[in-house]
Amino acid sequence: MADSDTLETERTRLRLTCRHLAGNGPARLADEFEAIAAWLRQHGDRLVGAEPVPGLQPDVYGTGALVEDFEAEVAALFAMPAARFMPSGCMAQPIALRIWSDRAGNPATAFHPTSHLELHEELGYRHLHGLTAHLIGAADRPTTAADLARAIGPGGVAGETGLASLLVELPAREIGGQLPTWEELVELGDLCRANGIRLHLDGARVWQAAPAYGRTLAEIAALFDSVYISFYKDVGALPGAMLLGPRDFIDEAATWQRRQGGTLYTAAANVVSARMHLAECLERMPRLIVRARQVAALFAAHPRASVLPHPPHTSMFHLRLDGERDELLQARDRVARETGIWLFANLKDIDGQAAVKTELSMGPSSLLLDDAELAAAIALLLEDGSPSDGR
Amino acid sequence: MADSDTLETERTRLRLTCRHLAGNGPARLADEFEAIAAWLRQHGDRLVGAEPVPGLQPDVYGTGALVEDFEAEVAALFAMPAARFMPSGCMAQPIALRIWSDRAGNPATAFHPTSHLELHEELGYRHLHGLTAHLIGAADRPTTAADLARAIGPGGVAGETGLASLLVELPAREIGGQLPTWEELVELGDLCRANGIRLHLDGARVWQAAPAYGRTLAEIAALFDSVYISFYKDVGALPGAMLLGPRDFIDEAATWQRRQGGTLYTAAANVVSARMHLAECLERMPRLIVRARQVAALFAAHPRASVLPHPPHTSMFHLRLDGERDELLQARDRVARETGIWLFANLKDIDGQAAVKTELSMGPSSLLLDDAELAAAIALLLEDGSPSDGR
Repeated sequence: MADSDTLETERTRLRLTCRHLAGNGPARLADEFEAIAAWLRQHGDRLVGAEPVPGLQPDVYGTGALVEDFEAEVAALFAMPAARFMPSGCMAQPIALRIWSDRAGNPATAFHPTSHLELHEELGYRHLHGLTAHLIGAADRPTTAADLARAIGPGGVAGETGLASLLVELPAREIGGQLPTWEELVELGDLCRANGIRLHLDGARVWQAAPAYGRTLAEIAALFDSVYISFYKDVGALPGAMLLGPRDFIDEAATWQRRQGGTLYTAAANVVSARMHLAECLERMPRLIVRARQVAALFAAHPRASVLPHPPHTSMFHLRLDGERDELLQARDRVARETGIWLFANLKDIDGQAAVKTELSMGPSSLLLDDAELAAAIALLLEDGSPSDGR
Repeated sequence: MADSDTLETERTRLRLTCRHLAGNGPARLADEFEAIAAWLRQHGDRLVGAEPVPGLQPDVYGTGALVEDFEAEVAALFAMPAARFMPSGCMAQPIALRIWSDRAGNPATAFHPTSHLELHEELGYRHLHGLTAHLIGAADRPTTAADLARAIGPGGVAGETGLASLLVELPAREIGGQLPTWEELVELGDLCRANGIRLHLDGARVWQAAPAYGRTLAEIAALFDSVYISFYKDVGALPGAMLLGPRDFIDEAATWQRRQGGTLYTAAANVVSARMHLAECLERMPRLIVRARQVAALFAAHPRASVLPHPPHTSMFHLRLDGERDELLQARDRVARETGIWLFANLKDIDGQAAVKTELSMGPSSLLLDDAELAAAIALLLEDGSPSDGR
């Protein structure tokens, strides 16, 4: 017990003091709240007209310039008519599907077998909104038009009911950030439109998809009827999300947001944090796509490691390592102690194999590690060379 | 248009620069976020064991010492077995009623005709949770055991279905903060228990009820099966709420919180803000109860003004003023310009009468105004004396 406390304490210290290969987010919340306070002091007077006033008019129950200006900016970025800031994707996405289902008079929706709504939200779409979801396509690759055609065709899972909506996640997080090809995506959208199926984008990490496709966010959004985006993942802000779509759809979504308890007296910190970090995320994302390919290649050069997909489609990928979980976590700690690099946070066992996997998503800190020191760290992790190799 | 802009701008300036009679909350959000940052720097090292680390481990998806310690502290304050921090009361309360309904196999609940759930939440309890609510008792006074007996008795609105739960708000905000007598409340609780009806406390402002009854929060909570409390109203913190009840009830509530999109990656600012402000709220509340009676008496001395209830039961009351809304708002502005005191934010017309009403809830700033200057401000507002009277 005391030993495991000591181990956890050391791991926490290493995690908090090393340079990270993956991830981002406000690593020191105190810094983030100080930056938010400074932003509010700088922008406060703008929000109440020409008169300088000692303090900001925060957003109040989702209204006011602080949040509405930002919603308009993001709507313009995606070339969507309207947008609504919400606390989380868990709130935003079932609301979107509920609205499309209500309008179609059909509770049936569909998504990928690994969708966040199916795996991580306690099935709120079903228990709160009374929707039924068909999980379509293979679990290890993106959903295609052929998958949808099969589902809504004769004898398909939705052959009799049809579908009010289809949710597509770009990139698909649980399968290493895979994307369908642009042509496959257009074909899927065409098939939805032809069948009156509303296409909703789970864009939690859509910031990655734009440079990966070589398209703008607006070009991607144009294929969809509604879009959800997140500000705390790639953007690295405090929790926050936005739902985008037609004006009347967004007005209806705001009513559901209230019903779900998501219209807060103020969400100023979350809104300011997203406003502060978004531009930088858009600016760095193309470099993170390149970085993911470089890092994946460094791992893939080792016989005990493999990456999925290879090469990565976006700024994230799955890493598979041969070996035992505990041994590899100890090796990670050793790498951290000896090189100051924190390679990954956790490892999951792969059923029935002497191997583990983890997700590596490139954030700003990945750009601060050079290839030589990273190669040495990986060699030390996998013990197939001395720590001094490649230094 | 330009004139109305100028008026609004002046009113905003007055509102932000004057000393307020009513209300509280973080008037300058930048100050609040700086205080949160300082708190995090001070407490950060405590949360990851003995090793000092450069930064805090924030709450992650509702877990971790930052939020769990606070939940335990508040549960102890109310002598309830368990507590769960949530984003809002709109989220917490329908969840509580849903759980009691699921356990009873009965969707029927009941509350006061002016309950927040009926008036201000877009009927989430119905549209999300499928509950049916009976509005029992008269709209202008607290619900009594006699009201409940009538509702569940032969021919009553819930005579056939019975009730899974009853929600009671202490104090009842929409009727000027009225409380039932302690004996009436005990009688209501006894009748619920005798009929297998779970009694839920809407304790958005329960901080007022304890000193008003001369009872502890734990004594009040002992009459209830579950309790909701809020941190942004009397406490004056950022938005945040807590649901309290039996351990298995709270675990179930956490699942519903996830379904509703309320389990955030971090809610550190909201948790820290509540932790920072709660003790001070508990300390000042008895003085605010006294202050409400004093302020009510100052208004009630004028023939154009009356207060409800008189004397106030708690630290809030309704103020009724004879006259036209626009004229009285202009008088409020004049008082603000001439005395530096902001008496109230808004006025509502009373249907069919040449009178308006507003809510006055005493916050810390009410303690900084002395009676003589307040009497002069009220006299100026109601124009029944010269501004220099009573100074």
